[in-house]
Amino acid sequence: MNIRNVLESDYIPIVAVIDEWWGGRKMADMLPKLFFQHFTHTSFIVEQGKERIGFLIGFVSQTDMNQAYIHFVGVHPSYRKATIATQLYEKFFDKVRELGCTEVRCVTSPVNRTSIAFHTRLGFRMEAGDRLVDGISVTTNYDGKGQDRVLFVKKFSLLDK
Amino acid sequence: MNIRNVLESDYIPIVAVIDEWWGGRKMADMLPKLFFQHFTHTSFIVEQGKERIGFLIGFVSQTDMNQAYIHFVGVHPSYRKATIATQLYEKFFDKVRELGCTEVRCVTSPVNRTSIAFHTRLGFRMEAGDRLVDGISVTTNYDGKGQDRVLFVKKFSLLDK
Repeated sequence: MNIRNVLESDYIPIVAVIDEWWGGRKMADMLPKLFFQHFTHTSFIVEQGKERIGFLIGFVSQTDMNQAYIHFVGVHPSYRKATIATQLYEKFFDKVRELGCTEVRCVTSPVNRTSIAFHTRLGFRMEAGDRLVDGISVTTNYDGKGQDRVLFVKKFSLLDK
Repeated sequence: MNIRNVLESDYIPIVAVIDEWWGGRKMADMLPKLFFQHFTHTSFIVEQGKERIGFLIGFVSQTDMNQAYIHFVGVHPSYRKATIATQLYEKFFDKVRELGCTEVRCVTSPVNRTSIAFHTRLGFRMEAGDRLVDGISVTTNYDGKGQDRVLFVKKFSLLDK
């Protein structure tokens, strides 16, 4: 297994499989090619042999250079028991710390309990939302009407690493 | 009419109207809130009184800091005869030149002849694609299967401005 920076040429093979990786959900619209072109220093691909089995798209905020943001993470369904997502996040953390960031943010869907548990394990803190659902603090209509999200932040402490 | 930088608080009012501005096309998925949070220095809103009548979302490439990219531009249907889009692009050009960029890129759909004419008028050059359709050079499957695009680039000359 090998982790490397994203290349523009990864876009077509990845966008061709992501709806399938998400069990048929229409995800491709949320991932235009620009993310594989303009944020390559902070975005990563995992390869197993010649197959791309995971990716992470992230960037440094241009509004606040101390903040990094993870937009999209995908892992091939056959490899979800492995620690691929964790390794992608750790690669991203290392890179954005090197770039001077002190915190990483991301959002997930309230129904995605696997994702919520994953982020919590990785040291993300759930930010206070406007509604509590089964102990999860949810920000309603965050990404537009009906698009509720759970907001996560991880602050790097001076003691990390 | 007033042009100012985008604020995060512009997101909900804009995302609530964009499908309507695009005549019912589902556009909201292509515009997550992150664009209104992390690229505010290079993204703009046009207001007429208290109404938001146009916006431009753009950023500087983090892969190549000489390049700027325009992701999304929208104008309220009642104001399309005005020069709002032109003013938004010019505001963006000024800002990214100030940030050291030497070129701006964007893509549009081959069926959107109004957009193609607009970009050509503004000094964008059509990049060579892999298919010629009615004199338009198209890159097929650019944003995934069936997602053909026309690619535009505008290089700033030392004589501009």
